[in-house]
Amino acid sequence: MPESIPLPPGFRSASVVCGVKPSNKSKPDLGLLVADQAFPARAVFTQNLLVGAHVLLCREHLARSRGLVKAVLVNSGNANCATGEQGLADARRIAAETAKLVGCPEEQVLHLSTGVIGARLPVDKIVQALPRLLPGLAKGTFADFTRAIMTTDTFPKLATCRVPGEGGDITISGTAKGAGMIHPDMATMLGFILSNGRTPKDLHFVLRDLCERTFHRVTVDGDTSPNDTVVLWTSEQVWHRPSDPVQDAYVDGLVAVGRELSRMIARDGEGATRRVTIVVKGAPSERDARIVGRTIGTSPLVKTAIHGRDPNWGRILAAAGRSGVWFDAQRARIWIGEADLFSSGTPHPENEASAHQHMRDHEDVEIGIDLANGPYSAECWTCDYSAEYVSINADYRS
Amino acid sequence: MPESIPLPPGFRSASVVCGVKPSNKSKPDLGLLVADQAFPARAVFTQNLLVGAHVLLCREHLARSRGLVKAVLVNSGNANCATGEQGLADARRIAAETAKLVGCPEEQVLHLSTGVIGARLPVDKIVQALPRLLPGLAKGTFADFTRAIMTTDTFPKLATCRVPGEGGDITISGTAKGAGMIHPDMATMLGFILSNGRTPKDLHFVLRDLCERTFHRVTVDGDTSPNDTVVLWTSEQVWHRPSDPVQDAYVDGLVAVGRELSRMIARDGEGATRRVTIVVKGAPSERDARIVGRTIGTSPLVKTAIHGRDPNWGRILAAAGRSGVWFDAQRARIWIGEADLFSSGTPHPENEASAHQHMRDHEDVEIGIDLANGPYSAECWTCDYSAEYVSINADYRS
Repeated sequence: MPESIPLPPGFRSASVVCGVKPSNKSKPDLGLLVADQAFPARAVFTQNLLVGAHVLLCREHLARSRGLVKAVLVNSGNANCATGEQGLADARRIAAETAKLVGCPEEQVLHLSTGVIGARLPVDKIVQALPRLLPGLAKGTFADFTRAIMTTDTFPKLATCRVPGEGGDITISGTAKGAGMIHPDMATMLGFILSNGRTPKDLHFVLRDLCERTFHRVTVDGDTSPNDTVVLWTSEQVWHRPSDPVQDAYVDGLVAVGRELSRMIARDGEGATRRVTIVVKGAPSERDARIVGRTIGTSPLVKTAIHGRDPNWGRILAAAGRSGVWFDAQRARIWIGEADLFSSGTPHPENEASAHQHMRDHEDVEIGIDLANGPYSAECWTCDYSAEYVSINADYRS
Repeated sequence: MPESIPLPPGFRSASVVCGVKPSNKSKPDLGLLVADQAFPARAVFTQNLLVGAHVLLCREHLARSRGLVKAVLVNSGNANCATGEQGLADARRIAAETAKLVGCPEEQVLHLSTGVIGARLPVDKIVQALPRLLPGLAKGTFADFTRAIMTTDTFPKLATCRVPGEGGDITISGTAKGAGMIHPDMATMLGFILSNGRTPKDLHFVLRDLCERTFHRVTVDGDTSPNDTVVLWTSEQVWHRPSDPVQDAYVDGLVAVGRELSRMIARDGEGATRRVTIVVKGAPSERDARIVGRTIGTSPLVKTAIHGRDPNWGRILAAAGRSGVWFDAQRARIWIGEADLFSSGTPHPENEASAHQHMRDHEDVEIGIDLANGPYSAECWTCDYSAEYVSINADYRS
């Protein structure tokens, strides 16, 4: 099924095994996306002070090219992060070689890296592998590209949708890698959303809004690991002019693709056995709702309780209580699945069996809290916390 | 050895098995401290919006009694939290009965609870058990009291020291329970520091300072769980007037006891195999140093790496990078034990074997970061993160 995810018209992709990943030399680890010509792209990057070399390079290239991108090259297995001036020089050389290969100015190339921090990129290996990518462009699928950018992901993450435009359909297709890591670490998340749609809205704001409503809702703390990057890239071949400032099918389509990818990232948390949707209602602002959702979604105690299928609503309430958002705990309501567990200051132990059943029988667990302190709500996504998470991360490099 | 920790003159203690803990009916779960007369006490409480009934009760009693306390009663096994008006009424009744028993106004009694959230206290059981505490006061040790307030703790936490005062020594003895939980949850931490010393300083400020330098340095997120409380209680029998505003042996003694207890809490993190001291240097302020230390100390990726004895300095740098405190990652230095792992933008893989050895061979692991951005430093304490943590917390109530 991921195989059938189309690239929007105007884009091609390819991937090869290049040998960056020290532990697995047979997996593809170099992926290329090429556009028929340089198309508009915008990117958002990690908020971490520690940034991978690619963050500096991509920012500079997007500024110099005025946001026009001809090619995106991604290597997995090495984050090229905490590698100093040498790391930046390495990234530059790879981007320059890629530009020669696809025939464009080097600032129209984005080169991204994901993997382990603090080791120098095997530049020669990558440069030598570049020419092998070209023949693959004719028949490469988006799924091939996705596989090449995976690190600890257990399945490829792809999503697509179509929305009507003027004189044709707009295709929106996205892919993401990560979060192998449930918390920030190395080069966790990369996302690419490609389209042939054109909107009168500012593309950068469209991307910010998209991230706010999707990738920033995954409690991967995605916005803070050193290499996190989301790219929105469109050939702008099909116009979409929304008649209504609120209803915008194109933006809705972008958000739908981003949401799907975000939920896949949550499902693929390391060692996860459950995806958790956290619904926060009754907040004084949407931002407050998100803060409460993220605090609950990063609580190890909530996540271990879900792993144990334990409807431990006290931990949910305690996490919300330390989020910094004001509410009256006595007026709050907490539920899991369909089961109300706490409301109006009263626990409902009689409903715990039903909540336990929901957690036991569904891969997708919903936990909710109504703060009874305003009209705003938000959804966040996370996963449960298993002993396997610990062993995966304790053994990561050894 | 904990048996030999003395109570300061003027204090007695006792404990009984009362049956609050549903899972373990043979362990003591009700502890009492009684002073010869009402002595000055100050307390600091959790910052969580969700507070156990005892927080409300203790605040009120300390205000009404002007900080004079005759007795402290603690039950473990039930936090009396999220129990609404009924919970507060229950706490009031227990405090009133205790006051009758020891012969004082009820506002001179502090009653504290620790354990599971959201279940009503078995009030009758506790009230019926109260008279059985009296005979124990004659021979009860501080360690007996400590055992009665433990929940998931694996060892009793006690510390003591003596400092010279005017006409005699000052004894400072402290005990704490928790953190069974590495992150905030139910009623994590209770601490009691007792003394016979008298200081011209404001006792409340002495306690705030003490907590800032000790309990708030344990990344248990101790300050945010619903029942967290630290009590400083002194009979003020021996004067200590520091001649120097900076050198103050009494305050140093209080901090030493608090530090010892805090480090025991870190060592007893659920499932922990290593205690971790995080040293942050070169920060623009002490507060910044603490923030960086706590961010590193709460990173699951740092903590799982330590569990795997993996000197993964990239995770330490990435955690510092998302702490919100500015520094130049290229100028930072990171070490584990004696081994420098990253400095001046350069990794030192040749030192990783020595760092690994430090982690493998020492129960106490030191990790450090110099931000090279100021003169301030701070120490925080945490523990590693094991698969056992997950199973303990996944199975907590089931």
